[in-house]
Amino acid sequence: MEDLEIRPATAADIPAIVAMLAADPVAVSRESPDDLAPYYAAWERVAADPNQHPTVAVRAGRVVGTLQLSVIPGLSRTGATRVIVEAVRVHADERGSGLGTALMEWAIERSRELGANLVQLTSDRSRTDAHRFYERLGFTGSHLGFKLQL
Amino acid sequence: MEDLEIRPATAADIPAIVAMLAADPVAVSRESPDDLAPYYAAWERVAADPNQHPTVAVRAGRVVGTLQLSVIPGLSRTGATRVIVEAVRVHADERGSGLGTALMEWAIERSRELGANLVQLTSDRSRTDAHRFYERLGFTGSHLGFKLQL
Repeated sequence: MEDLEIRPATAADIPAIVAMLAADPVAVSRESPDDLAPYYAAWERVAADPNQHPTVAVRAGRVVGTLQLSVIPGLSRTGATRVIVEAVRVHADERGSGLGTALMEWAIERSRELGANLVQLTSDRSRTDAHRFYERLGFTGSHLGFKLQL
Repeated sequence: MEDLEIRPATAADIPAIVAMLAADPVAVSRESPDDLAPYYAAWERVAADPNQHPTVAVRAGRVVGTLQLSVIPGLSRTGATRVIVEAVRVHADERGSGLGTALMEWAIERSRELGANLVQLTSDRSRTDAHRFYERLGFTGSHLGFKLQL
């Protein structure tokens, strides 16, 4: 992992991020890799919000991983600040390289720096390998995640 | 539901909100209702963030329900904006009154107004009644929710 750089994403990373989002069989139908306009529009909203931390992992000048951290202050859990991790992806060429672990360990450490008391994420129920991966990192799958498309 | 008002929470609502958070058997051990100082400190962070929407339901001048909406812009799902719903509570005296449904229907409509394409929440796996409630509202329990306490 020594040649790996984990840094804030920029607009220039959008094509590589979208390619990874769309390469995922569970998510491919939700993405539009041939039309990046909606992603650039969304990027304006992400970049304008100081509590959003879109992130890429880069190796040898190539974007090979991504995730987004969102800082959410709140009253529950004695005023806990949460970090939510979304859109975790590792490039197919990097599977098994330890990059996913390095990226999530970075996310946990960065969440601490951001003042979070709790890190949370949801993972599609079909992704059983991912569930074991998160449990190895210390996460507990204590909740059901509900979604409603508007 | 005609005498019900759903409005943004203010600092003056904190004692009533914390009482509802702590009245929940699943969550009671995580709250400190006898020491409100951490909640007032957290309130400063919540109130300073325009993407946080702490909310109360009020009937006859009394706070009887609460939830928090968090707006999260992102790249995944073709640049979808999500609303995350946290800390949903209904006062014990109001259970079965339809207040929970009214509050969540309000949350869904408000999420639309806030530009969201997706509403999501997690619910402790032990809360099977809550799971049926969210499914009746149109949510799909498609994900596992993982948490890591820092």
